[in-house]
Amino acid sequence: MDETIIDSIWVLLSAFLVFFMHAGFALVESGFCRRKNAVMVLLKNVSVVSIASLLYFFVGFGLMFGEGNAFIGLSGFAPAATESVAGAPDGLPLYVFLFFQLVFAATAATIVSGAVAERARLGTFFVFTAFASAVVYPIVGHWVWGGGFLADLGFVDFAGSTVVHVVGAGLALAGAMAIGPRLGKYGKDGSSRPMPAHNFPLAALGVLILWLGWFGFNGGSELAAHPEAIASIILVTNLSAAAGFLAALTHTRLRTGMLDLSMGLNGVLAGLVSITAGCHVIGPVESILVGAIGGVIAVEGVFLLERLRIDDPVGAIPVHGMGGIFGTLAVGLFSAEAGLFHGGGLALLGTQALGALAAAAFAFTSGAAFWWLLARLPGGIRVSAEHEFEGLDVAECGVEAYGEEPRGIGAA
Amino acid sequence: MDETIIDSIWVLLSAFLVFFMHAGFALVESGFCRRKNAVMVLLKNVSVVSIASLLYFFVGFGLMFGEGNAFIGLSGFAPAATESVAGAPDGLPLYVFLFFQLVFAATAATIVSGAVAERARLGTFFVFTAFASAVVYPIVGHWVWGGGFLADLGFVDFAGSTVVHVVGAGLALAGAMAIGPRLGKYGKDGSSRPMPAHNFPLAALGVLILWLGWFGFNGGSELAAHPEAIASIILVTNLSAAAGFLAALTHTRLRTGMLDLSMGLNGVLAGLVSITAGCHVIGPVESILVGAIGGVIAVEGVFLLERLRIDDPVGAIPVHGMGGIFGTLAVGLFSAEAGLFHGGGLALLGTQALGALAAAAFAFTSGAAFWWLLARLPGGIRVSAEHEFEGLDVAECGVEAYGEEPRGIGAA
Amino acid sequence: MDETIIDSIWVLLSAFLVFFMHAGFALVESGFCRRKNAVMVLLKNVSVVSIASLLYFFVGFGLMFGEGNAFIGLSGFAPAATESVAGAPDGLPLYVFLFFQLVFAATAATIVSGAVAERARLGTFFVFTAFASAVVYPIVGHWVWGGGFLADLGFVDFAGSTVVHVVGAGLALAGAMAIGPRLGKYGKDGSSRPMPAHNFPLAALGVLILWLGWFGFNGGSELAAHPEAIASIILVTNLSAAAGFLAALTHTRLRTGMLDLSMGLNGVLAGLVSITAGCHVIGPVESILVGAIGGVIAVEGVFLLERLRIDDPVGAIPVHGMGGIFGTLAVGLFSAEAGLFHGGGLALLGTQALGALAAAAFAFTSGAAFWWLLARLPGGIRVSAEHEFEGLDVAECGVEAYGEEPRGIGAA
Repeated sequence: MDETIIDSIWVLLSAFLVFFMHAGFALVESGFCRRKNAVMVLLKNVSVVSIASLLYFFVGFGLMFGEGNAFIGLSGFAPAATESVAGAPDGLPLYVFLFFQLVFAATAATIVSGAVAERARLGTFFVFTAFASAVVYPIVGHWVWGGGFLADLGFVDFAGSTVVHVVGAGLALAGAMAIGPRLGKYGKDGSSRPMPAHNFPLAALGVLILWLGWFGFNGGSELAAHPEAIASIILVTNLSAAAGFLAALTHTRLRTGMLDLSMGLNGVLAGLVSITAGCHVIGPVESILVGAIGGVIAVEGVFLLERLRIDDPVGAIPVHGMGGIFGTLAVGLFSAEAGLFHGGGLALLGTQALGALAAAAFAFTSGAAFWWLLARLPGGIRVSAEHEFEGLDVAECGVEAYGEEPRGIGAA
Repeated sequence: MDETIIDSIWVLLSAFLVFFMHAGFALVESGFCRRKNAVMVLLKNVSVVSIASLLYFFVGFGLMFGEGNAFIGLSGFAPAATESVAGAPDGLPLYVFLFFQLVFAATAATIVSGAVAERARLGTFFVFTAFASAVVYPIVGHWVWGGGFLADLGFVDFAGSTVVHVVGAGLALAGAMAIGPRLGKYGKDGSSRPMPAHNFPLAALGVLILWLGWFGFNGGSELAAHPEAIASIILVTNLSAAAGFLAALTHTRLRTGMLDLSMGLNGVLAGLVSITAGCHVIGPVESILVGAIGGVIAVEGVFLLERLRIDDPVGAIPVHGMGGIFGTLAVGLFSAEAGLFHGGGLALLGTQALGALAAAAFAFTSGAAFWWLLARLPGGIRVSAEHEFEGLDVAECGVEAYGEEPRGIGAA
Repeated sequence: MDETIIDSIWVLLSAFLVFFMHAGFALVESGFCRRKNAVMVLLKNVSVVSIASLLYFFVGFGLMFGEGNAFIGLSGFAPAATESVAGAPDGLPLYVFLFFQLVFAATAATIVSGAVAERARLGTFFVFTAFASAVVYPIVGHWVWGGGFLADLGFVDFAGSTVVHVVGAGLALAGAMAIGPRLGKYGKDGSSRPMPAHNFPLAALGVLILWLGWFGFNGGSELAAHPEAIASIILVTNLSAAAGFLAALTHTRLRTGMLDLSMGLNGVLAGLVSITAGCHVIGPVESILVGAIGGVIAVEGVFLLERLRIDDPVGAIPVHGMGGIFGTLAVGLFSAEAGLFHGGGLALLGTQALGALAAAAFAFTSGAAFWWLLARLPGGIRVSAEHEFEGLDVAECGVEAYGEEPRGIGAA
């Protein structure tokens, strides 16, 4: 039997787990938002998967893995199953690789939806999603995984702390700033008004699904069924998530006196994001450290954004952005092969900083420019104050998330 | 190493995904129904899985895959692991194949539960479930997959657009007509009263789980780990679902001016149902067309049923029935091997129409006859108006789905 | 290709399913508890996974599988990937095996959290979780799976009816007794006050996830991709769960006249627990009997605990404890190799009784002693009556599970 078969099964299994992450994102984002906007959040999340699936097949995959230059790929659009695409690995059928990459691509765009939730206008959000999944994400992906200039420099991002998470967060930050905070979030006196999760069980389930999905996200990025390698990747991914939860919970408790499940859940995600770049070269004990630092960074990031009066309803920017930058740097610190703490000097760390910075800058500036353009279109990028006040579910979807038909009235 | 091993792992993984679809169905059906009946819907869904699991093992598998004639199998009931069953493939251990088929069988019965939700009487519904999963579904399955007459005619239904979905919907239509609409659904003046979903996050999560499960439903139907084949199947399944969502959402928007998440979610399912028969012979670009058409058909089907004053609380009949028939025909249109649009002439299309029609007619008439019989039993097939008015959860289960114990009273 | 690869993929896939069970437990426990404590239940469940992940890696794995004596292992703590650990199987990379065992270990601790929900104090519960997952569970695990004295006696517990479920329930019973019933649960006149599930859809989803996860729990315990063996294991696991549901539902109906979804769901779990010890040697028909008996035992167990005035909000003790003991004995009754009903005499049955008793006694007494110690610490093991009355979510977490911000007020 050919190794292709078992490698393909592993990558497809991983792709299923990554696909399932979209259910996790949908639950986290709708659970963390307010009740009056939950249907719209769900609608946006399913839309992102759908739009990104189509556009990545037609456009994104070719820009990311096609033959091209150091900046962008330019072939392999809507490829046939038998086509040879420059950046695709030998030894995997093309559609196995393409499907894995496709479910990945949608995650970067999904990160944006959380940060602009509860006030972004649907039409322009759809256009932005197309831009993010078909253009921005694939271009950075080409730099790192498609043979582009960061690959040439020796930049290491095994499963996408930078490619997925920093890029998603850069676009999200541009969006949150362009669209502005939710009405009532920040008072004129500088105060910040809490807008707590409307459904914690959904949010917690979503995070557990994301935790599960990450085993495929990181483990599948090996792109082959190498048992020692993937088992280690999965073990450190799990330890980092666990450490991120406990660190975020404890840090918040010490800082505010509160037992804050929201922060703990974001700590899980930050732990996962932080280990993503280096999960193949960081050992179990150090992965706990990475996850714990990631968890604390996410908590501090939430407070920092509040101070900056940037409104990110689900904490996407701290988790994916700050966690992603830290995770990218963590390779330079903890890599068993070339990390600073393993005698590797500053070379790798410098490359990691450069790569994360380049991706963040490109995502933020291209995102900001695109949001700026969209804001000039009729209708703009933000719903009306009336709709926002009433809630998007009733105002735009004509329903409530948990339609109240008191028992007994059904047959009136 | 034997290929049997990797083939078995693939089919078992697929079976797990199909099993998980039952969680998806439970969430979609309970989420879409009214709050006062949510517990009963859940109870029915878990019951369907349980009843179908037992009866398919003892009866259905033998009728479907046993040695028999062109209409029905007649051996292989409750088979031993080492038994040789005529319709089972060589190269897979019998129980691997049986378990995959068993989780499939339960899905057809589950489709019925959605269409008769909120008013079917539990006892007779259980009997009908037994009939559906142990008799009707296996017989049609035998025609197509067990060496029966449709197999001989060259009818193509790779993963069950007809065998599972048309059959399920045929039984469901018979049930919805026999039991009649929910009290208050249709006014005497011909008006239709909306009864919106009581819990959109559950419904959306359910659809995302079904989307995930379908990768196993379609991919596992290859019954072997052929990486090129299954990757293509999974890719087109995904593209068709995405297209179904966007087409249903857009079509509803243009038709009614509404952003309708329910319709979008049913569009996902219709896209999945529509690609199921031909996912092995339809390419990615055409799969998008198939999904989009399926999504539009499902939306129009919902309106059509309303005009016909047939009450289907979750849209099971449009999604599975109309989507299933279209999907079966789509093989005759788009198959790269013998479809009309690929120079194959009308032969295959005619066979596809014949097969879908035969299955629909058999399911509907046997279902109608069985519901008619059940209606003659003491108690009948419908709950009392009092129970329906009050809600089945309180009236029959003695609980509320979201029992309200105001905070602070717990220790009173 | 090496068989190691496919064996590893199977065990990792199984581990993912077992990990997903933690989402199932979180939903079952939060869904079954009262609304006012749902956030705290979720927080505890994510904490258990996190704490157990870290401590089992550092301590528990070595106690369970390290070189040692008949009672305990004493090496292999925080092992390197290349380390050789006495109790680990040849033919699997160490971290594949370790990760599978790690996700298993967390389940035993999770069982406790359900039984002490709604009134255990978080700090001491964390300490107890550490004790359970790092000490008690690994020691019993060593007896059975790590080459300890029960292994030498020929005790059979394939996937943990005793090692996981009896141990978890023994610790849980000790906790429920030490902490005492929820305020208001039992009246001074001996009456018992129902405290029904606050969210049935969550609980039902949780049980379906656990059902799915059990395919990995039992199937993965083969620790190799032997297709005939694992297919049979998965088939009987499924049949036993189905039978457990129908038996519990029917038994409750006959006993109380009620259609009780809670009991049915606990019947599913009891069916799963009951088949866990012998899923590799019990055939399909007998597995249905095992599941049905397990389901009835769980129902009777719930009533028994009520009579004993022990408060177990989610039924963890009947399901895991009584189901686990019965499942362990069921090997002695139904094993095709050496069971009483297959001519094997009483020898195996006696060994099974001895093993289950030893594990139950050890778990209960060590748990009781540890809870007794914890109760002496400042703060004790129970929240204040004020907090319990108000609900732990508001009192300790500062939020409500479903924060009510009436629509329209968001921008006030």
